[in-house]
Amino acid sequence: MTVTAASTPAEPSEAELRALDAHWRAANYLAAGQIYLMANPLLREPLRPEHIKPRLLGHWGTSPGLNLVYTHLNRVISGRDLDTVCVWGPGHGGPAVLAGSWLDGSYTDTYPSVTRDAEGMAKLFRQFSFPGGVPSHVAPETPGSIHEGGELGYALSHAYGAAFDNPALLVACVIGDGEAETGPLAASWHSDKFLDPVHDGAVLPVLHLNGYKIANPTVLSRLPEAELDALLRGYGHDPLYVTGADPMAVHRAMAAAMDTALDKIATIQYEARTDGSTRRPHWPMIVLRTPKGWTGPHEVDGVPVEGTWRAHQVPLDQVRTNPAHLAQLEAWLRSYRPEELFDEHGQPTAPVLACVPDGQRRLGANPHANGGLVLRELPLPALERYAVPVDKPGATLHEPTRVLGDLLEQVMADTAQRRDFRIVGPDETASNRLQAVYAATGKAWQADTLPVDEHLARDGRVLEILSEHTCQGWLEGYLLTGRHGLFSCYEAFVHIVDSMVNQHIKWLRTTRQIPWRAPIASLNYLLTSHVWRQDHNGFSHQDPGFVDHVLSKSPEAVRVYFPPDANTLLATADHVLRSRDYVNVVVAGKQPCFDWLSLEEARAHCARGAGVWEWAGTDDASGEPDVVLACAGDVPTQEVIAAAQLLRHHLPDLRVRVVNVVDLARLMPAEEHPHGMPDAEFDALFTRDKPVVFAYHGYPWLIHRLAYRRTVHPHLHVRGYKESGTTTTPFDMVVRNDLDRYRLVMDVIDRVPGLAVRAAAVRQQMADQRSRHHDWIREHGTDLPEIADWKPGN
Amino acid sequence: MTVTAASTPAEPSEAELRALDAHWRAANYLAAGQIYLMANPLLREPLRPEHIKPRLLGHWGTSPGLNLVYTHLNRVISGRDLDTVCVWGPGHGGPAVLAGSWLDGSYTDTYPSVTRDAEGMAKLFRQFSFPGGVPSHVAPETPGSIHEGGELGYALSHAYGAAFDNPALLVACVIGDGEAETGPLAASWHSDKFLDPVHDGAVLPVLHLNGYKIANPTVLSRLPEAELDALLRGYGHDPLYVTGADPMAVHRAMAAAMDTALDKIATIQYEARTDGSTRRPHWPMIVLRTPKGWTGPHEVDGVPVEGTWRAHQVPLDQVRTNPAHLAQLEAWLRSYRPEELFDEHGQPTAPVLACVPDGQRRLGANPHANGGLVLRELPLPALERYAVPVDKPGATLHEPTRVLGDLLEQVMADTAQRRDFRIVGPDETASNRLQAVYAATGKAWQADTLPVDEHLARDGRVLEILSEHTCQGWLEGYLLTGRHGLFSCYEAFVHIVDSMVNQHIKWLRTTRQIPWRAPIASLNYLLTSHVWRQDHNGFSHQDPGFVDHVLSKSPEAVRVYFPPDANTLLATADHVLRSRDYVNVVVAGKQPCFDWLSLEEARAHCARGAGVWEWAGTDDASGEPDVVLACAGDVPTQEVIAAAQLLRHHLPDLRVRVVNVVDLARLMPAEEHPHGMPDAEFDALFTRDKPVVFAYHGYPWLIHRLAYRRTVHPHLHVRGYKESGTTTTPFDMVVRNDLDRYRLVMDVIDRVPGLAVRAAAVRQQMADQRSRHHDWIREHGTDLPEIADWKPGN
Repeated sequence: MTVTAASTPAEPSEAELRALDAHWRAANYLAAGQIYLMANPLLREPLRPEHIKPRLLGHWGTSPGLNLVYTHLNRVISGRDLDTVCVWGPGHGGPAVLAGSWLDGSYTDTYPSVTRDAEGMAKLFRQFSFPGGVPSHVAPETPGSIHEGGELGYALSHAYGAAFDNPALLVACVIGDGEAETGPLAASWHSDKFLDPVHDGAVLPVLHLNGYKIANPTVLSRLPEAELDALLRGYGHDPLYVTGADPMAVHRAMAAAMDTALDKIATIQYEARTDGSTRRPHWPMIVLRTPKGWTGPHEVDGVPVEGTWRAHQVPLDQVRTNPAHLAQLEAWLRSYRPEELFDEHGQPTAPVLACVPDGQRRLGANPHANGGLVLRELPLPALERYAVPVDKPGATLHEPTRVLGDLLEQVMADTAQRRDFRIVGPDETASNRLQAVYAATGKAWQADTLPVDEHLARDGRVLEILSEHTCQGWLEGYLLTGRHGLFSCYEAFVHIVDSMVNQHIKWLRTTRQIPWRAPIASLNYLLTSHVWRQDHNGFSHQDPGFVDHVLSKSPEAVRVYFPPDANTLLATADHVLRSRDYVNVVVAGKQPCFDWLSLEEARAHCARGAGVWEWAGTDDASGEPDVVLACAGDVPTQEVIAAAQLLRHHLPDLRVRVVNVVDLARLMPAEEHPHGMPDAEFDALFTRDKPVVFAYHGYPWLIHRLAYRRTVHPHLHVRGYKESGTTTTPFDMVVRNDLDRYRLVMDVIDRVPGLAVRAAAVRQQMADQRSRHHDWIREHGTDLPEIADWKPGN
Repeated sequence: MTVTAASTPAEPSEAELRALDAHWRAANYLAAGQIYLMANPLLREPLRPEHIKPRLLGHWGTSPGLNLVYTHLNRVISGRDLDTVCVWGPGHGGPAVLAGSWLDGSYTDTYPSVTRDAEGMAKLFRQFSFPGGVPSHVAPETPGSIHEGGELGYALSHAYGAAFDNPALLVACVIGDGEAETGPLAASWHSDKFLDPVHDGAVLPVLHLNGYKIANPTVLSRLPEAELDALLRGYGHDPLYVTGADPMAVHRAMAAAMDTALDKIATIQYEARTDGSTRRPHWPMIVLRTPKGWTGPHEVDGVPVEGTWRAHQVPLDQVRTNPAHLAQLEAWLRSYRPEELFDEHGQPTAPVLACVPDGQRRLGANPHANGGLVLRELPLPALERYAVPVDKPGATLHEPTRVLGDLLEQVMADTAQRRDFRIVGPDETASNRLQAVYAATGKAWQADTLPVDEHLARDGRVLEILSEHTCQGWLEGYLLTGRHGLFSCYEAFVHIVDSMVNQHIKWLRTTRQIPWRAPIASLNYLLTSHVWRQDHNGFSHQDPGFVDHVLSKSPEAVRVYFPPDANTLLATADHVLRSRDYVNVVVAGKQPCFDWLSLEEARAHCARGAGVWEWAGTDDASGEPDVVLACAGDVPTQEVIAAAQLLRHHLPDLRVRVVNVVDLARLMPAEEHPHGMPDAEFDALFTRDKPVVFAYHGYPWLIHRLAYRRTVHPHLHVRGYKESGTTTTPFDMVVRNDLDRYRLVMDVIDRVPGLAVRAAAVRQQMADQRSRHHDWIREHGTDLPEIADWKPGN
């Protein structure tokens, strides 16, 4: 990790600048060519309508700016032998990044049929945004990318995620001025307070002010210079400005800015790593102000295009039918002087390739951008050391997430040198009772500390910021570059990242089908402080719907677990931390919870994903039960156990089967989800025609959605959260939502044929208990002693 | 709107400062009392364990700061006769805002049983965070609030929403330094570029740096002063600093800061409104730096509490069982000298009430914070002027959102003076083809403009920023203060506000049950640029799941519509813009779409929400059909019409019923949603046992989730989006997802008993057509001419 202090390379010569310009012109030519051409790629003949794609789809506006960054990153990578990845925030500028990759040869390395010659260029052009071809965006298919950029907002947090624990890596990050208006991007500027100059790499943000979005000027581009400068300094940066529309002047300024920035980064790292400076660095960044659609058509049909929002997508859109447009396109393409850039074989000429680095230094070939290549197995300790002893179900209580915290402490300790495991969370790691990890590592913090602070450390690997977006972006960037992690979050507020997890699932779904993309560690959520125990906060903090959201996405990439106690949480965590290419959602409680299963039982139960808990029911294994009481989630499990106990007491001859579900996807048909249970297994577990009363942690309709094809479905009755909440007692929460033990007993009585009459008195007793509860809590403010002190088996 | 230039009030005298302090001490006493006491509210006897609530729930840490703001807002409201609402970002500080409302009398006005005396104080204390009582947060139940604050992030955008088009209003907004780390809050600082000093009111942000979140220091509180100042100036503000822990010094500084800020606001408004200044103002803001849990226990059990994260919730948590804690609580409460603050009846003394304003000037009684009180009917023009003529279904094409744009232009024109209608969107109003509105109003923009810019205007009522969070927050604030609006958004990216709409639905669900809350205009989404037509962008822009998300929430507050053509969109828009207290989601296309229904037919169809399209099928009205082809959404409707036409051609004796669904909730059981169809009606429409092939716009499982209880459900087969997308042709998108006309015909053949054999040749022909499509698009890049040029009835 020791670096030498910066040795500033000489200013680029005029010849070098001309070569950089050649690379940039070549990239611009290739970007425009991808949008327009399906033949005649090198303009060896006059352009005719049939050379033009019938549907013109893509984004020109951002491409010249991205190309400029690609060119100048090539220069400094080559000149300084840098290990560099780039996050392209304006990911809709796919033509640019594809052009850069084709020029540096990584595209042909990845897709051998797209050769770096005329034939390959023709393929490169034709395939772009064409049926059966490649997406218009920087996508998983794009070599060197860890970032789609279609939704916008996550570039900078992805870049920091890539830089954490990669001390030798430079992560360049282009931020569009449109993207800069988004909340997630705005929040992520403060990531610099969490980047350790000793153990982490560097992030070089390039804020690209091209002035316009789809239809409007951008906010940042219209700030007075001094105000923009104040803002960026307020974010903790030391900005460098590159402004212009004259290519050679911009090349000169960009080269100088890159050199200055990289010298500063080297100095910061040297001071921290060698001199031991603990000052929070003010990292450099570049503000690049160039016209939108730069070098494209200046005016089209009498209105300005270059430098305006009209350059956003396709500046000339009638090329096939309007001869003037066709002529203008040809003039535009020829303005790059392709004959200077590509030889008779269509191969890039020497000046074009002068700046291009070699091998894995190429932006399109850096292994960090194909993180599975550098991923190592996470060292996970034997669970036996952390398991709670369970001789008898429900005899003891533990806080499951606290038990998990002990395991995670060991993982943190065992990765202290490797530094490839992080926990992220929005200020909730301790609230979620994982604070044991602080014995092994601290919370990353580069700003000032006070004597009263606890667990803050420059090199800490717990990342806490009150921004779920930033947490998610950091972790995604960390995983995509081949490391491991866990996001612990309040259940309700993980909805904040709904759209981010959508994009990550899309990424995983796509990469699973791309042979050259090596599998990466799964994105693991621990959702706790859940809907049933929001004692301090109430209704605003109650939302179990993230599971519904995730389960509506690509089944091959999503898994959902509801471990009902401490040992099942351990077994689940062990499984998800070893898995690859999934989004795993684990919902678990932090409040004291009865221990139901020994570690051995927990492992077996989690392996099955769902199973009968014989000890809890009165089911005769030899025959069918009268009713199935099913449960998923810690609180529903407790209520089901209590309901089964009440039934055993009041209706001892009723055969009650208790089924617990840990892996929710097991309820789905086998043909719809890899974990889906075959019908025969489902029927054996839940019966084909007996009443099933299912107590579920979240929205009841999800269970119906998953199980509607099952034979027993007409007999399935689901209880769950139905948006009835406030600050009240824990038991009142389940009563309000009809998930309580008394209600479940009543449900059984109402649904088992013939029981309504025979058990009318029991039913009345249950109803009376609920009334008593209502009166009691309003008087005392606490749950009835028989509830608060309840223990299984009593 | 004319204001006079500021006349600075005199500095507060020592007596006035002492009175302000008395109000603040009273509020602090009441805040702590709510968290702890269930008896002995005035400490007329020594504190005993039985006076203490058994469960101590709430947030003390932020409360003294909120109280300080409440006290000083009272002062300036009284002194300047200001019309003011306050958005309390740290909404978990419920005890503070409840205390302020009780002191200003608005609490008793709203809840007469909670009188402003000893008896009422006892109720105020007991009810807080107590079963059957009130939530711990600033909630819909709290007088004067438009903002829950549980999730954090939306305070400032809500404040701006309230200020738009309310030129006489001051909107104070407390931002916690935790909340300030969130993305939505970070983005919303730039709202000042959209606030028109002439037609809008003022927002006064108070950034409260109390230094800590739940477990960590906050980022902003640890910035060096100069860096923080640069940041806030970079946001466009002119910050004033109030720092301290000595109450009297802070009162003096806060009074001075408030006066300076309000003088500046008055000057800005005067210059803009009277002098005609068009300079973008740099609005004042206050940075309030006081200790977390200020005036609470300094140390507990030997560790520091006041001024640290440990003061976040309940500083002393063993009061019932630990006599030392009990004694410390009593000393803490007595430190406010309640005997000076409340008279023998428990009524606040004159000094305490000296700063409190009267009537509707009170923060707890301002009608803008109960927006339904000031809401006026939106003037909506007759739809006949905008409807497209339809003599024959499918004979013409229109872009539905463009037709809607003409209607919205008129609404904008008709509200030009009233200024109570806004359109918000993330830079997509024109992309979504609503640009006709620019003939009636501009896009709000206070920054510099260039000659090339279009439609920017200081007083524009279209709000565009590339932040869905900010759009949503602005619109929520606007609606909650009694105005009307529409959020037009790309379908996929509305997921960005999933968690915000959750909170808004919770707010609506709660306010619907609060008699004193007057109904407000619905939050209307127009989702377009939808999943089926992401030609330029592909997979990242394809997600129809927002509907699933919304429909999992409180049914009484959510509505979802899929108008299939221009006239049904008009009828739907007319309906949702007139509605109250809902979240309405309208999904409609912007691409040319066949006109199926005349306005009259569209109105009737939308009123029913779902119905048979006799002209499209071959159903004999006298009997049951052989198969039902159902559809919801514009693209599925087109494919169903085409499939029905193919069936009519190839299998003329097959009785095909075509059903179109506009109002998705009609599929739900009547007992689960107010729009749910009774079973008899559902059975009559969809039959009880015939195959139903349902072509749905979004995820197919949603239809199963809604309809699983229906008799016909075992025969329901749903096609929809199944996450198969990229940049390809429009028809290829439906083929990839098995939603195309050929596939639908095959589905019918596969499902109608006996048809598989009889129609084997037709089925093969359909399969061949699909193969032909595959080959064609890879060759030509466009859809088959027979698809691209298809017209109904040919």
